Amino acid sequence: MIYLDYSATTPVSYDVLESYNKVTRDYIGNANSIHSLGLKSRNLLNSATKQIASVLNILENEIIYTSGSTESNNLAIIGCALSYQNRGKHIIVSKLEHPSVYSICDYLQSIGFKISYVNNDEDGLIDFDDLKNKITDETILVSICGLNSETGVRQPFKSIRQIIKKQNKLTIFHSDLTQMLGKVSFNLKDVDMASFSAHKIFGPKGIGMLYKNSKINLTPIIHGSSKNDVIRPGTPPLPLIVAFSKAIRIANSNLDKKEVYVKKLNDKIVNELKKYEDIKINSTKYSIPHILNISILGIKPESFVHAMESHEVYLSTNTACSSGNLSTSVMAIYNDKDRALSTIRISIASITTNKEINDFLEFFKIEYDKLKSLNTK
Amino acid sequence: MIYLDYSATTPVSYDVLESYNKVTRDYIGNANSIHSLGLKSRNLLNSATKQIASVLNILENEIIYTSGSTESNNLAIIGCALSYQNRGKHIIVSKLEHPSVYSICDYLQSIGFKISYVNNDEDGLIDFDDLKNKITDETILVSICGLNSETGVRQPFKSIRQIIKKQNKLTIFHSDLTQMLGKVSFNLKDVDMASFSAHKIFGPKGIGMLYKNSKINLTPIIHGSSKNDVIRPGTPPLPLIVAFSKAIRIANSNLDKKEVYVKKLNDKIVNELKKYEDIKINSTKYSIPHILNISILGIKPESFVHAMESHEVYLSTNTACSSGNLSTSVMAIYNDKDRALSTIRISIASITTNKEINDFLEFFKIEYDKLKSLNTK
Repeated sequence: MIYLDYSATTPVSYDVLESYNKVTRDYIGNANSIHSLGLKSRNLLNSATKQIASVLNILENEIIYTSGSTESNNLAIIGCALSYQNRGKHIIVSKLEHPSVYSICDYLQSIGFKISYVNNDEDGLIDFDDLKNKITDETILVSICGLNSETGVRQPFKSIRQIIKKQNKLTIFHSDLTQMLGKVSFNLKDVDMASFSAHKIFGPKGIGMLYKNSKINLTPIIHGSSKNDVIRPGTPPLPLIVAFSKAIRIANSNLDKKEVYVKKLNDKIVNELKKYEDIKINSTKYSIPHILNISILGIKPESFVHAMESHEVYLSTNTACSSGNLSTSVMAIYNDKDRALSTIRISIASITTNKEINDFLEFFKIEYDKLKSLNTK
Repeated sequence: MIYLDYSATTPVSYDVLESYNKVTRDYIGNANSIHSLGLKSRNLLNSATKQIASVLNILENEIIYTSGSTESNNLAIIGCALSYQNRGKHIIVSKLEHPSVYSICDYLQSIGFKISYVNNDEDGLIDFDDLKNKITDETILVSICGLNSETGVRQPFKSIRQIIKKQNKLTIFHSDLTQMLGKVSFNLKDVDMASFSAHKIFGPKGIGMLYKNSKINLTPIIHGSSKNDVIRPGTPPLPLIVAFSKAIRIANSNLDKKEVYVKKLNDKIVNELKKYEDIKINSTKYSIPHILNISILGIKPESFVHAMESHEVYLSTNTACSSGNLSTSVMAIYNDKDRALSTIRISIASITTNKEINDFLEFFKIEYDKLKSLNTK
């Protein structure tokens, strides 16, 4: 099997699953219970949180555990909108967001918020002038995905934050960094809030977090008793949290070295695919090497994905969370419907081997030729 | 160790953890992905859902997975309030709810909803006349916990539903059945919506569900793309879902036989504790045998819980999710502050042994005598 869909989800690493099992077996108390089994669980929860805070260089009370990035995005955007609506009802997002962000925006629009969509350039970067012009006194939030899941384009969010704060120092900056965690390094001082998910970094499904600067007050989207964090009540899922903490520590070790390695694999693919006349590389010079988006013009991407499966090669058309076939990000960058309707996403991890990439390219050629000859018959 | 806090949380059963591990290892695809690994995951998700639907005698599309009962309660109550607010803005809850329900009600009140609290009698049962009188044309929802987590009192929710529907056939009836699942049998035809959680039935933390009659439309509290269920978007946490399904099947097998066994253990404790002059039994004749609530007058419940820990016996004062020391349910039933401030909850499972109960009673006597003699010195 050659799995090249790591941006959809990752297998859980052995060590992370071991942690999950150990905690499940050895920490049976509810972290909210007052007896020593509860306290033992609460202490482990605190130490897992401390480790995450240390790796991400944030404060422990700036972490809110959620069920994943979709909930994190909801809590950040809706929580901020409801909390600061007295300041204004204007929110800005990019045209390169995860589908969940657009659903949230549609909901907020239905209850009276105004949403603006900031433009980007042909490299997939946010148009700074457009962003500057769109920020008003009423703008309470700007949410711009730090790393686009379809094309891998990375936004310079330090500069974006500077522009935002210069225009309106009260405007809060949220960034979905789900695809960035464990791939490239970043500084959370450059954003006010950020969404993360464990299952994209070889951790378990069903756990994520929101980083929230301690000065920000969010209206909860899930209400409950006050024993946990005020924002996200419920019995803490301790084994998931510890496993997430472990996954973050593993993912963030040797980041630079792993990135150099993945870049080599990416280069090999790009150099080979450039030779095909009908293939367009959608990832830009600002894309991280872990995500390579291409369009095979004239071939239905689903057909190609299924053809590659016969060799046990697993790819995406666009994001797994997207409801249609059109890649909204590729459309936003190239404004070319044919191209946006024929995207293939190849996502690579540092556990991907050279041999896998060589085999992938071989199978790619076979299936490309087959589908092309069918199409020209 | 003698664990008698099963209503706070349960250890994960061996078979359930095995399922979790197997799915984590063998089903790596995102259930939303279009390739065969995704399809394999999606098929397993569907079959786990089918099994839950079959055990609970509901339709598959009446299941919405959540992160646990707190989220289920939020989705049910807020989702219903926002969806049906054009019909009216009145909601009724009991005085015997899980703390999360009161937090939700406070939030809804802050955005213009009117909340009424229905009375109960001295056995802990809902006052039918009061309920009848409180339902108006504006009442869109009645939420009454089917099984009180502090006292174990079980509501006759078939009759409650009849009263509700007779007064206003459009009023929706939600019940938090978290503590009922896997302890006693019930019929989901008797409610319109019901909340459940895996970690109370020897399943993993971080997964729960809302049963929702297919005719009800809820406004989501978490918005996202439409590939999953419309109500709860995000990558489905497949290993948690399969483990939950397994836990439900195990918990629901031989229910009656297990209840008879737990009743014997409960009787043994009650018969012994009746001999103590300062002990009041707070559970009533309508309590299930799995939850036994008592008050030891004149002894601080935390002191007693900690004293019992020296024998590795684990008990609760009140629910783990409560923020204060006062048992709101005991207060609602007996209207006696001393009694409500000195509650101890003993929660028993069908895996509890006779020997554990005998030892518990022995340690109970030792610590009771010790604390009493300290208090009278």
